Amino acid sequence: MKIPQFEDIVRAHELIRPLIHHTPVLSSQSINEITGGTLYFKCENLQKVGAFKFRGACNAVFSLSDREAAKGVCTHSSGNHGAALALAARMRGVPAYIVMPETAPEIKKRAVAGYGAQIIFCKPTLESRESTLAGVASRTGAMEIHPYNNFEVICGQGTAAKELIEESGPFDLILCPVGGGGLLSGTSISTKALNPQALVIAAEPEGADDACRSFHAKKLIPSVNPKTIADGLMTSVGELNFRIIRRKTDEIVTVSEQGIIRAMRMIWERMKIIVEPSSVVPLAAILENKLDVRNKKTGIILSGGNVDLEKLPF
Amino acid sequence: MKIPQFEDIVRAHELIRPLIHHTPVLSSQSINEITGGTLYFKCENLQKVGAFKFRGACNAVFSLSDREAAKGVCTHSSGNHGAALALAARMRGVPAYIVMPETAPEIKKRAVAGYGAQIIFCKPTLESRESTLAGVASRTGAMEIHPYNNFEVICGQGTAAKELIEESGPFDLILCPVGGGGLLSGTSISTKALNPQALVIAAEPEGADDACRSFHAKKLIPSVNPKTIADGLMTSVGELNFRIIRRKTDEIVTVSEQGIIRAMRMIWERMKIIVEPSSVVPLAAILENKLDVRNKKTGIILSGGNVDLEKLPF
Repeated sequence: MKIPQFEDIVRAHELIRPLIHHTPVLSSQSINEITGGTLYFKCENLQKVGAFKFRGACNAVFSLSDREAAKGVCTHSSGNHGAALALAARMRGVPAYIVMPETAPEIKKRAVAGYGAQIIFCKPTLESRESTLAGVASRTGAMEIHPYNNFEVICGQGTAAKELIEESGPFDLILCPVGGGGLLSGTSISTKALNPQALVIAAEPEGADDACRSFHAKKLIPSVNPKTIADGLMTSVGELNFRIIRRKTDEIVTVSEQGIIRAMRMIWERMKIIVEPSSVVPLAAILENKLDVRNKKTGIILSGGNVDLEKLPF
Repeated sequence: MKIPQFEDIVRAHELIRPLIHHTPVLSSQSINEITGGTLYFKCENLQKVGAFKFRGACNAVFSLSDREAAKGVCTHSSGNHGAALALAARMRGVPAYIVMPETAPEIKKRAVAGYGAQIIFCKPTLESRESTLAGVASRTGAMEIHPYNNFEVICGQGTAAKELIEESGPFDLILCPVGGGGLLSGTSISTKALNPQALVIAAEPEGADDACRSFHAKKLIPSVNPKTIADGLMTSVGELNFRIIRRKTDEIVTVSEQGIIRAMRMIWERMKIIVEPSSVVPLAAILENKLDVRNKKTGIILSGGNVDLEKLPF
């Protein structure tokens, strides 16, 4: 299993730069006053398809040879990776087949369909996702692009921290959420290369804390019945991701559901941007005193902004 | 009555540049596909206090001599200008007295109080606002800073279009909403100086269409019982503003309330940013075919993002 290096992220960035948004880095004086730190938010909610996932999907799709890409791409995804892969495939001009749990948010189903992908529904379990996907792949011949346990996807995700550090760094701390670990593994590689004195810390919902438990046990412990409003963070950490996280991530902390809702509302009200619950888990960790950012310069990756406006938690 | 020139806006920009956010310019591929144009949104919803109003208030407060500023500043405002003046006064270290209608949105009252200003409530009529403010000014000796009918305020507001054109121009069209005319007059001066071939077009709610009627009648017609969800656009156009608008604005169009709600939802869902109803009136005009942006490069100023999350229209 080949481990991505920073030069792979540099190459990924060159490939996808013309295709992605260079997202802005925003600050809020009032959130700085509340937390006592100096926070820089990298706004991947403003990325294409509304999430950092477009970076990884785009790198994976455009790294394929013409022959590999010819029959299209496929994946399973509760939402953002599916939309990202659908758009990347459309940009490359190849078909996309997206296996989605029936329970995925409406807004995410509409987005995937809107980008012209074919959706195949499954039960909301990892087993059902994987068996459905295997069927799709063998039927169509499409290349499977895993949402996070994939070399090129990790390299693409690492470009967000690269942009953040190049634009606003160096930092004392770099924070991001962790679900499957695609963003965290890419962020850790970029940070340790560009800004080695910074600590990389991830935050995770208490109700889906497999990454935190795996990190401290030093072995992969899969997620069982995860329950959290942060629907992007329910998946179990991938094997390749975990190898990188064990070496290059400094700490993983967990937060409460109430903390997530409070942090989400704070960003909506004070920063005037729409973030989904998964995005605000690191800020929730700061507000719940799981992380001390006082007098520190901290970069935070806001992972996405796809929420159903009919189902807001406030 | 001295009319602001572009060099006054340049000077204002030098003065306030270290105090304001240089707000990002965002685009949305999907909104471009829907409208058939190439739209660049200048995100003043991401400005300090969540509105372009901070530019004008800041310029007005920091243009005062120490002697003029000593007893503080005062104004009447339904919200954003009040918050902007409160923060600018706090940054300068002088008191602020804000006359607000009792009916102003809760979020705007909280913001003004949060910046340390003293709020004086009045009835929601122009007469009550003005008489209450006159009382405050004579009691405290504070300098009155009108929300829009003020030389320095207009110069400050003109810096938003200046940044937009310098960063992403030149454009075929520059669009903004019009309420009192502070933003429109400043925008018109900057555009005609920097990008004279661009048309400057403002949009206004049908239920508060005094600017449109005044523009076409070529004389000021005050707003009577305005009714619109775009609470920032209820005020009547100011005299100084109208002099500039008559000379330098090319057209004013009106939009329906339903069009405003549809455009607001589109920006929330597709661009992942929080905008208040007043902000989206130009996009509503495009969606209602009041303005043709097809195959044109269009700059749009999104004026603010202060909405009460408890009272969303969708």
